[in-house]
Amino acid sequence: MSRPATTSPFVVSATTETRGTNGTTSPLGSKPSQLGVAVIGCGYWGPNLLRNFHEGRDTKLVGVADLNPDRLAWARGLYPHITATSSADELINDPRIDAVAIATPVNTHFELAMRAVRAGKHVLVEKPLCHRSDLARELIDEAAKRKVTLMVDHTFIYTPAVRKIKQLIKDNELGQIYYYDSARINLGLVQADVNVLWDLAVHDLSIIQFLFPEAPQAVSATGMRHIAGRPETIAYLTLHYGSGFIAHCHVNWLSPVKVRRTLIGGTKKMVVYDDVEPTEKLRIYDTGVKLGQHGEAEKGHPDYRMRIDYRKGDISIPHLEGKEALKLEVEHFVESIRSGKPPLSGGAEGLQLIRMLEAASQSLFLKGQPIPL
Amino acid sequence: MSRPATTSPFVVSATTETRGTNGTTSPLGSKPSQLGVAVIGCGYWGPNLLRNFHEGRDTKLVGVADLNPDRLAWARGLYPHITATSSADELINDPRIDAVAIATPVNTHFELAMRAVRAGKHVLVEKPLCHRSDLARELIDEAAKRKVTLMVDHTFIYTPAVRKIKQLIKDNELGQIYYYDSARINLGLVQADVNVLWDLAVHDLSIIQFLFPEAPQAVSATGMRHIAGRPETIAYLTLHYGSGFIAHCHVNWLSPVKVRRTLIGGTKKMVVYDDVEPTEKLRIYDTGVKLGQHGEAEKGHPDYRMRIDYRKGDISIPHLEGKEALKLEVEHFVESIRSGKPPLSGGAEGLQLIRMLEAASQSLFLKGQPIPL
Amino acid sequence: MSRPATTSPFVVSATTETRGTNGTTSPLGSKPSQLGVAVIGCGYWGPNLLRNFHEGRDTKLVGVADLNPDRLAWARGLYPHITATSSADELINDPRIDAVAIATPVNTHFELAMRAVRAGKHVLVEKPLCHRSDLARELIDEAAKRKVTLMVDHTFIYTPAVRKIKQLIKDNELGQIYYYDSARINLGLVQADVNVLWDLAVHDLSIIQFLFPEAPQAVSATGMRHIAGRPETIAYLTLHYGSGFIAHCHVNWLSPVKVRRTLIGGTKKMVVYDDVEPTEKLRIYDTGVKLGQHGEAEKGHPDYRMRIDYRKGDISIPHLEGKEALKLEVEHFVESIRSGKPPLSGGAEGLQLIRMLEAASQSLFLKGQPIPL
Amino acid sequence: MSRPATTSPFVVSATTETRGTNGTTSPLGSKPSQLGVAVIGCGYWGPNLLRNFHEGRDTKLVGVADLNPDRLAWARGLYPHITATSSADELINDPRIDAVAIATPVNTHFELAMRAVRAGKHVLVEKPLCHRSDLARELIDEAAKRKVTLMVDHTFIYTPAVRKIKQLIKDNELGQIYYYDSARINLGLVQADVNVLWDLAVHDLSIIQFLFPEAPQAVSATGMRHIAGRPETIAYLTLHYGSGFIAHCHVNWLSPVKVRRTLIGGTKKMVVYDDVEPTEKLRIYDTGVKLGQHGEAEKGHPDYRMRIDYRKGDISIPHLEGKEALKLEVEHFVESIRSGKPPLSGGAEGLQLIRMLEAASQSLFLKGQPIPL
Repeated sequence: MSRPATTSPFVVSATTETRGTNGTTSPLGSKPSQLGVAVIGCGYWGPNLLRNFHEGRDTKLVGVADLNPDRLAWARGLYPHITATSSADELINDPRIDAVAIATPVNTHFELAMRAVRAGKHVLVEKPLCHRSDLARELIDEAAKRKVTLMVDHTFIYTPAVRKIKQLIKDNELGQIYYYDSARINLGLVQADVNVLWDLAVHDLSIIQFLFPEAPQAVSATGMRHIAGRPETIAYLTLHYGSGFIAHCHVNWLSPVKVRRTLIGGTKKMVVYDDVEPTEKLRIYDTGVKLGQHGEAEKGHPDYRMRIDYRKGDISIPHLEGKEALKLEVEHFVESIRSGKPPLSGGAEGLQLIRMLEAASQSLFLKGQPIPL
Repeated sequence: MSRPATTSPFVVSATTETRGTNGTTSPLGSKPSQLGVAVIGCGYWGPNLLRNFHEGRDTKLVGVADLNPDRLAWARGLYPHITATSSADELINDPRIDAVAIATPVNTHFELAMRAVRAGKHVLVEKPLCHRSDLARELIDEAAKRKVTLMVDHTFIYTPAVRKIKQLIKDNELGQIYYYDSARINLGLVQADVNVLWDLAVHDLSIIQFLFPEAPQAVSATGMRHIAGRPETIAYLTLHYGSGFIAHCHVNWLSPVKVRRTLIGGTKKMVVYDDVEPTEKLRIYDTGVKLGQHGEAEKGHPDYRMRIDYRKGDISIPHLEGKEALKLEVEHFVESIRSGKPPLSGGAEGLQLIRMLEAASQSLFLKGQPIPL
Repeated sequence: MSRPATTSPFVVSATTETRGTNGTTSPLGSKPSQLGVAVIGCGYWGPNLLRNFHEGRDTKLVGVADLNPDRLAWARGLYPHITATSSADELINDPRIDAVAIATPVNTHFELAMRAVRAGKHVLVEKPLCHRSDLARELIDEAAKRKVTLMVDHTFIYTPAVRKIKQLIKDNELGQIYYYDSARINLGLVQADVNVLWDLAVHDLSIIQFLFPEAPQAVSATGMRHIAGRPETIAYLTLHYGSGFIAHCHVNWLSPVKVRRTLIGGTKKMVVYDDVEPTEKLRIYDTGVKLGQHGEAEKGHPDYRMRIDYRKGDISIPHLEGKEALKLEVEHFVESIRSGKPPLSGGAEGLQLIRMLEAASQSLFLKGQPIPL
Repeated sequence: MSRPATTSPFVVSATTETRGTNGTTSPLGSKPSQLGVAVIGCGYWGPNLLRNFHEGRDTKLVGVADLNPDRLAWARGLYPHITATSSADELINDPRIDAVAIATPVNTHFELAMRAVRAGKHVLVEKPLCHRSDLARELIDEAAKRKVTLMVDHTFIYTPAVRKIKQLIKDNELGQIYYYDSARINLGLVQADVNVLWDLAVHDLSIIQFLFPEAPQAVSATGMRHIAGRPETIAYLTLHYGSGFIAHCHVNWLSPVKVRRTLIGGTKKMVVYDDVEPTEKLRIYDTGVKLGQHGEAEKGHPDYRMRIDYRKGDISIPHLEGKEALKLEVEHFVESIRSGKPPLSGGAEGLQLIRMLEAASQSLFLKGQPIPL
């Protein structure tokens, strides 16, 4: 890679050594500097990372690692110019590589990420950051010490739909938020190492974390194991908050239908976010409820309950840009590295999510008993 | 009412005195005997009861009571021949009346039903039976003592859709059942006296009770109050069972969209029951999941998780009869009175539901802590 | 009927004799004057007319006629105070009756309407006005001579959805209109006397007539008879206009699915009107197409065709009032009688529709050959 | 390309010279013979052809031609080993190439295909075969003379959905077919050279041709030009048959919504084929209509029309294989070349389609006048 170390934006807030930009002097008139990137793990999500780093204006795909020879062959076919290896360390130690994206099973995240951080690489880890909060803490500390960027691949917060909702909340279009309610169910891969919360609810938790600054006080979860020797295949998770807000996620690997629907209810408007819809993902309902005025005499009346006023107005379906979330996320990763500023989904966010998942798993075991956060 | 007391089918298993058929000798060639019925409460549900008792072959609508003069006027307009009164007792003590249907606010059910039972009337009470399990117990005992039929209006178990699901389970079409998962949400009446569980989840609990004989061991519920001075507007309820089965209901009075969707997942087939659909309410998915065989070597492999086999087959949408559930239910009420046999949704079923709702409300207060049943 | 003839608004523009208000002196403090109405034909549509005239503030339901004794019995049960007869003439000659609504098979419309008009009654006829344009002409002339109101029951133009579209067009929200395209298909009654155009396309023609003042120049229709001895069960109709506008209706009695979807495309916005949707009937697409600028060089280019610019914006679903169209229509009928002004769907409109249907049937026979209008 | 000419399956029914297998002696144990293929035109459809020929077991992608340098660069990036050129002739004359796929604008099909056929190449042409039936005839004759395979890319007939319908018809599951009715509308590319019939209705015509052996007797079409200087943007086409069957296609480039729905109605069952659905493309309705028996007396009765019996039964959604149609089509192209048998969508089928399109365009001009076929 012919990126000029001294003039690289990547060295603004770190030395070459610690930030891993490993560049050499660039010839005059060369292409603007690009971040050398490798992807470790080429299963379900890895190919998307490969493609986005390959196509990214500011990134140069340098290598891929996977234990499966077929996948390596596939990657070689598509990207003949990159290093394809079964050894993650080969990439971690490659001086052409500035950043590593890790898309391996969850319980391998910590070790691989730690090795990469220690080698001075910036790291993007597939969600969740890792499988234990204490290890996540270690990882964050190490990254801080090494002055490298640690980011978690909370893809959904980079989607046009979630960003639009964020904007609506920011602009107080929805009023005070009553609830976040999500169903994320389909016939999914029943995993061997993590339960359905760690696989699917993590998406909702990252969205909730992004949209609502209020910290949850406790979590309660219920669920069931349906397949011998496997973790929970279906789960329900409630986040309790100090204010009137409540969040709930329903995840299921054994549903015959695919549902990806989130309801966000506010005092002024309500949003339905249906991620299965190809284009009309958001519907904004000018719909609300408010308590009406009522006199003394009505209290004993059977219609006393009717004194809530319902408002049903227009529905609006905003046009959303078709931009791929991962593309935006990769750009944000590069920006974070360049600026040295913490990314939107950095180590701290990743850690908070793991703590929620750990508490939820504990609650799951205790059949719903709330666990303080 | 000219029904022949002595030849009435209503006296087969009870004396005229205790079964309240209050008849007089019928002239020769008269119309077959009909049950004299009155409806107390003419708000949201009452008009449906009026219509069904009016149209029923075996019932004769005799009276209606309501505190609201407008509603009485409306009922008088539609059924000019019946007694329309603001006094429930006038009907309860009317000798032409054999049975009383109660469709008033929940916290008035006990008193009205008790008075009717003590007057020797058969009673059909809108769900839930009443607002406290100890009172429900008293009601059941009194009805047994008086030998009158006590039935709860668990309408859904009389729908063609739920009856079809019952049949599928009975015929082992679905295999072992993994879960019952229901969402029952819309912009609903925020009630003053009962929370959303007592208003909406009661439907699901009655369906679960009807479909699955296994008794739940504990209940866990979470939820939130959103309107000052009102009970919970949104709630999530999990029923824990000893077997691998789990049931969950999601109810919400503040949803901008109306959803009435229940998923029932079995080892062999899965059912989606969408009650918002006008005709295609049931979809039966020939879809399943089973653990595949795998050798030793694969355990460390990233694809280890893939060894679950997914089966995706045809979907079938059975044609359902268009019969109104309440019509069927009224027929079943009459049959139960005539035969003296306990109805499908009798006092015992009503009591069990109240116990679930009481435990759920307790769990709601304790933020999800499981309450044994 | 206790309506004061002399103070009645019905006599403003006509004498009692010709306008048929047949009133008698009203006692002091009586209810405001109401129009005495009878309904002839109590099959599919008649019951809706009965209910709306019964509930109308300005109408008093006085009688119903039908040849079928069961239907008469049904009507008597629901409206015990009215005259229920098998003789239409009994009603036509009843002095208490000011107006007659005719909901009988199409080929009986002319005779019944003519007799009613000649008896000085205002007449509301189910669509289409009658089965031949020459007879429609006679009817119009007779009504004009007798100074009674002749109105056709083009229900759709009184729906909130169609009125909203009318408003959008009036406010130039849609720009210049490109097309009206409608599918109106379902498993319908295969009629013996008229083909599917006369039964279903008549709805679209009335909507087109209401929305677009431009007169069509010719009609072309194709279709097929599928059941021996019956008229066409499926048909396609195109209206040709002098401007760039085109209208097409697709009607079918043999469709397994019910579709009621109309697309209206304009240069600025487009509307989809789905009448099967219970509440979200209209979707307004901020979507359009315009020809882009292009230079000489591009003409030979394979992408030459790409130079059309597409605009995809927000979608808006307006909230529509839940008001029943027939209620609004009955009010308009009363208003037209009172004011003496021609109704929106009067004889002239009814005649134009019949002419279109006659031309379309001719084109149908000629396999699509255009017939000038 | 190292394919053994003498042992190649491609030479079974033709000499090397005329069938264009242009091989050289293959070393022992070499990979089985593959067909050398080039793609001319790399716009909308070309990339799919490239990918399928690249991935095909029996095909080897050798070259691509396009006038647009950006597209060539894109293709080079993805397939660095192939010849990417702006000269179609370079490929047509390349001895490594056995077959050419043409995906250029319609009015260039004839010339390019003719040059390829004359060079002894097998040819797969994007639909429609070409823009004039007389030229199509020439092409067919030349291909026959040269003994090369000429196939048209009627993709839809290779889809699992259409093949399933074919099977249902073959097995007489649907009974006698009443109609084929299709809507194929969306915001599409308004083309400069061909009207919307040639672009979209061609799909339906190819499906109709494949499903129904009966030859249509006449065609009637209506439509409208909406954009100055462009051909028709919206059109309606009816095919008239001698039997009771009718086919209709509705195509539109200016629709705000994408609809791809086909209804096929039979005496026994009906099919709805919705190509927008990702997986549930076919719904089979056990629904039908038959004329009931009726006596003399009923003829005058208003309910006479009710004597059609409607049958509403279950709906079945068959599981369809996820196989890509173009993959199947490419395999069929190879098979046809190898066997020398005419493909399902050969020159004859392509010519018949053009004749229908020509007649339809003529009818369009004459506002629906039927044109004999």
